[in-house]
Amino acid sequence: MSFDERPAPSQRDLANAIRFLTVDTIEAAGTGHPGTAMGMADIAEVLWNRFLKHNPADPSWIDRDRFVQSNGHGAMLIYSLLHLSGYDLSLEELKAHRKPGSRTPGHPEYGITPGVETTTGPLGQGFANAVGMALAERKLAAEFNRDDFPVIDHHTYVFVGDGCLMEGVAQEAASLAGALGLGRLIAFYDDNGISIDGDVRAWFADDTPARFRALGWHVVSDVDGHDPGAVEAAIEEARGVHDRPSLICCRTIIGFGAPTKQGKEEVHGAPLGAAEATATREALGWRYPPHEVPSPIRAGWDARKRGADRQAAWEALFARYRATHPDLAAELQRRMAGEAPVAFASAVAAYADALLAEPPARQPLRKASSKVLARFTALLPELIGGSADLSQSTLAWTAASRSILPGGFAGNFIHYGVREFGMSAVMNGMAAHGGLIPFGSTYLVFSDYARNAVRLAALMKLKAIFLYTHDSIGVGEDGPTHQPAEQLLALRAIPGLSLWRPGSELEALLAWEDAVGREGPSVIVAARQDGSAIAHSGEHRQAIRRGGYVLSEPARRPDLVLAGTGSELGLITETVTHLAAEGIHARVVSIPNANIFAEQPTAYRDAVLPPGLPSLFIEAASSIYWYQFLRGPGAVVGIDAFGESAPGPLLYRHFGLTAEAVAARARALLAVGT
Amino acid sequence: MSFDERPAPSQRDLANAIRFLTVDTIEAAGTGHPGTAMGMADIAEVLWNRFLKHNPADPSWIDRDRFVQSNGHGAMLIYSLLHLSGYDLSLEELKAHRKPGSRTPGHPEYGITPGVETTTGPLGQGFANAVGMALAERKLAAEFNRDDFPVIDHHTYVFVGDGCLMEGVAQEAASLAGALGLGRLIAFYDDNGISIDGDVRAWFADDTPARFRALGWHVVSDVDGHDPGAVEAAIEEARGVHDRPSLICCRTIIGFGAPTKQGKEEVHGAPLGAAEATATREALGWRYPPHEVPSPIRAGWDARKRGADRQAAWEALFARYRATHPDLAAELQRRMAGEAPVAFASAVAAYADALLAEPPARQPLRKASSKVLARFTALLPELIGGSADLSQSTLAWTAASRSILPGGFAGNFIHYGVREFGMSAVMNGMAAHGGLIPFGSTYLVFSDYARNAVRLAALMKLKAIFLYTHDSIGVGEDGPTHQPAEQLLALRAIPGLSLWRPGSELEALLAWEDAVGREGPSVIVAARQDGSAIAHSGEHRQAIRRGGYVLSEPARRPDLVLAGTGSELGLITETVTHLAAEGIHARVVSIPNANIFAEQPTAYRDAVLPPGLPSLFIEAASSIYWYQFLRGPGAVVGIDAFGESAPGPLLYRHFGLTAEAVAARARALLAVGT
Repeated sequence: MSFDERPAPSQRDLANAIRFLTVDTIEAAGTGHPGTAMGMADIAEVLWNRFLKHNPADPSWIDRDRFVQSNGHGAMLIYSLLHLSGYDLSLEELKAHRKPGSRTPGHPEYGITPGVETTTGPLGQGFANAVGMALAERKLAAEFNRDDFPVIDHHTYVFVGDGCLMEGVAQEAASLAGALGLGRLIAFYDDNGISIDGDVRAWFADDTPARFRALGWHVVSDVDGHDPGAVEAAIEEARGVHDRPSLICCRTIIGFGAPTKQGKEEVHGAPLGAAEATATREALGWRYPPHEVPSPIRAGWDARKRGADRQAAWEALFARYRATHPDLAAELQRRMAGEAPVAFASAVAAYADALLAEPPARQPLRKASSKVLARFTALLPELIGGSADLSQSTLAWTAASRSILPGGFAGNFIHYGVREFGMSAVMNGMAAHGGLIPFGSTYLVFSDYARNAVRLAALMKLKAIFLYTHDSIGVGEDGPTHQPAEQLLALRAIPGLSLWRPGSELEALLAWEDAVGREGPSVIVAARQDGSAIAHSGEHRQAIRRGGYVLSEPARRPDLVLAGTGSELGLITETVTHLAAEGIHARVVSIPNANIFAEQPTAYRDAVLPPGLPSLFIEAASSIYWYQFLRGPGAVVGIDAFGESAPGPLLYRHFGLTAEAVAARARALLAVGT
Repeated sequence: MSFDERPAPSQRDLANAIRFLTVDTIEAAGTGHPGTAMGMADIAEVLWNRFLKHNPADPSWIDRDRFVQSNGHGAMLIYSLLHLSGYDLSLEELKAHRKPGSRTPGHPEYGITPGVETTTGPLGQGFANAVGMALAERKLAAEFNRDDFPVIDHHTYVFVGDGCLMEGVAQEAASLAGALGLGRLIAFYDDNGISIDGDVRAWFADDTPARFRALGWHVVSDVDGHDPGAVEAAIEEARGVHDRPSLICCRTIIGFGAPTKQGKEEVHGAPLGAAEATATREALGWRYPPHEVPSPIRAGWDARKRGADRQAAWEALFARYRATHPDLAAELQRRMAGEAPVAFASAVAAYADALLAEPPARQPLRKASSKVLARFTALLPELIGGSADLSQSTLAWTAASRSILPGGFAGNFIHYGVREFGMSAVMNGMAAHGGLIPFGSTYLVFSDYARNAVRLAALMKLKAIFLYTHDSIGVGEDGPTHQPAEQLLALRAIPGLSLWRPGSELEALLAWEDAVGREGPSVIVAARQDGSAIAHSGEHRQAIRRGGYVLSEPARRPDLVLAGTGSELGLITETVTHLAAEGIHARVVSIPNANIFAEQPTAYRDAVLPPGLPSLFIEAASSIYWYQFLRGPGAVVGIDAFGESAPGPLLYRHFGLTAEAVAARARALLAVGT
């Protein structure tokens, strides 16, 4: 019979293309996770072929639906989907799965593979990222859509497994999504009853539909995940609910089709083996050799024409929008391009000018940060703030803040609740969506709760800003549970993260300026307590941008360097006065961003911290970090212990962070040096 | 009228004693959180005066009920309860709340205040600790109780606020508690509708009773938390349910009694102010001056007689138990005293002897750790293991492991599900309960998810052991999401934590030996991949215990030191061979536990790492940590970047971790030194 007479491939045939791309790729690689892709193939087929709005030729189309595979270990599922639907991801690239430099790494990575919307693998976070994307969509829709012009109008779809739903971060994000009523979010639960340790019922006995209903979700329960009609009906139902996020609970068989291994944990994370792969072919009636997808099946998957048509229709809509609302259209394009408003740089410059013209002020450093933030929030409509229930303590809430509330997304401030990890992962999702620059705030010590999301922001190079206040023993009476010590070190050590600990309002200004402009995440740390009145010169404005600089120089050649950050600059300045009285001349170096300073050319770093010149680093935190900067005789004055519950100034004395004590350390250092 | 004719104080009077101890103390301190204590005083009064089994004279009685205040910011609640019921906590000590060195710090701290069962403040974790305590109770009951001898038979009660329930860690623990059916756990939800940002409904809209029912809990909903009768009935009901944990949802008014501030967020975290304190006195009819509790009310609270009687009854039971089951009684006493079995030390010695007698073996380091663990699990019935769904990958599951399952608590291995943070906080609760030494396992990179629980274990000095495998780029194809880099540094920097990264089975043996004997938490890190065949001498057995030691010495005076840990010992040994061929003589130093090594006397450290001798530190992780150990010319070979998805050996080459590359670094170091 001729090609045209052949029956169109069934939905099962289409799904099987995913299964065998997965099986064969993992078989050849000798490593990988086949179970999830085989189990969710039928669901993915329905979603991608019947619903997903996307254009494989333009993965950056702003009104595309977002698709997130939170159970990222099953990466061959999304790679197969991208390949089959027509993204720039060849069969050869699929075959390079898990090989060096490939675009199909072991887990999906944002920025590596076209169409991968976020990096997944650390469980639960992809789901939380999806909540952030769905929130970004509603926020941008509220801001930009006008009657007859739904220019922002897309869904976020996310696949989750048992593992994702066991993780606390998913609970935090689900609860927030329910409270806010994110109707454009549709999650698919791959309810296969298996996790790595085996049958989940012994450790995961939740009634998941009831749980999500309790969180305010619309739930479609008891869907056969291998029945395309049932899946389609469930998606239709979910798309019809606009005031709540939806969870579609799909009963599936992990490793569907593998005769002896399906439904068992052994199919989760290892190749099937040659014999089982062959038997799976027979069981599913797949008659094609490895990596061959026959053309009718390819045709059934090809989304290029449909995608181009849909994007063209949207472009036509947008052209009409631009004609009617030219300012809004230009603003949306600016936002999605990630460009600063034209007036921004000059406003920052004027702010800096004003600071330099004023006498230096003594104020809480969190307040200095907050003043900058208030100005930036007014200048940058893309800046969308929030706090894990500490809006007033972190001073993230400013006069320019307006709350985002259930059903009301026009504001610019999210009350995340007491959910540090969820907040951070939701921020990552908003940053990945585009059009917004999220910042979120909590106390520095609780960065611990959110640490892996901060790491993923760095891995993905997302523009997300984490504001952490209450940054040392200076917290005082709340005690050691609330006093960070090792957190500065631990955050600075995350590759690609940029951590600022400003000691003045000028440093805070340039920190925030750098953070909103940077390709990658930033942490801004601000003390709860007063900083000192730091006298800045005009030169500092450029110098601060280099992360570390000479804040003050003695009249004659320095005997030593005193270097530090943030709230300790005042202590250092006081120490200099003590030493000067004894004829010891100290240079003061401020290092508000050691990550950036470490990236400066050697000549610059040597000019700031001359090799051989004795140096003392002072920071009310773990000392370990600063030894790498010692270039000769030197020491670090830090706190390598837990704090305690007492007034902050007493604790500074207790831990030897007084001008007298630091001066004594400086004298001891010089005595050894001579 | 005489004293006896005066009416007995009402339950409200008793509760008001808590309220005014709280109000007056915080007023005097000028800092603190009155809202929770005022809101939960009526509930606490019922629980403590009608139900709680405890003896204020002996806070270590093993069969006492455990009481945890997870909303630890309201610390004046538990301090008032302890003081009023007769613990060794005087009024003067209450008045020292939040002052230096006091036994009433800003948040309740384990080990500081008698009767405080765990440190709380970081939200959600106290609740998870309580799950661990309730699990420990069931495990010990299954192990030790015999017909007519319920020697372990107590409840765990925990107070939680909105903040605790928003945190993901609470979800993880609640889901596990529901799956396991922990019937002796009773939680009280302080449903006051307020968190720091204000009315919670805009960000916390969960139907909490429905949510907990979905997790398998028994829920008593809609209880008036200011009606003692209603609270009492709810507790009775909860105590009658034996197969499920219970949640009692209490509607309360935060800051109950403060006329203008109750029910508002401003009463959460600041003194009421003198005027409001006075008005509260009037509103509640409290006629006594600050810090005065009239004697009838004191008498109503005094639990000393009742507690002594209850403990005496238990002691009598235990005496009969000892007579009937002398071995069990002795074992329980050993376990609660935290002593090792008599045969343990000799068994470890024999193990070490055997290792030293054998030719050195090449094996995956996680396997080396697992062999030790199998032996220890057989030797130590108190060792209760588990994994966050990676039992087989971390090799935490050994031949000696038996699962703890719903309703069956006799085993020694907990399947925590994919819940790293919940696992760690539950472990802390078990360790605080006593009688068990918990260890829990996951991949090193996911220590990020659990970091604050590890920190709290260190702050509390709990004997909990965190086993982290897959410890570097050696993970390979799973890619950067699964490859740790900065985690070793971040963990070693937690004050009081002891981190081992063994490079041989002997090092693994002594690591585990130290961990089970240590007063405080340990992390044991083990590579997924093969270690080298390390030749140990008998001297190493003692030397390893010092955290760092000379593993091998060249025939002539060393030109430099090559120091490293774990899986890099093989690379270092290979580098030594390369260098020796060029006439460069290197000492090899192994530092399996840098925390312990750093605590050694200077003379010892100088003998291992002689000042002035060039030294190169090699570890496949963030380099930052090792600079503090440089005592002259030196360098660190590490990885200050994210890994990628590729086979592990390729990645080692990519990052310059080969014998050739390290030898080149050594030559360069010596060239600079000369």
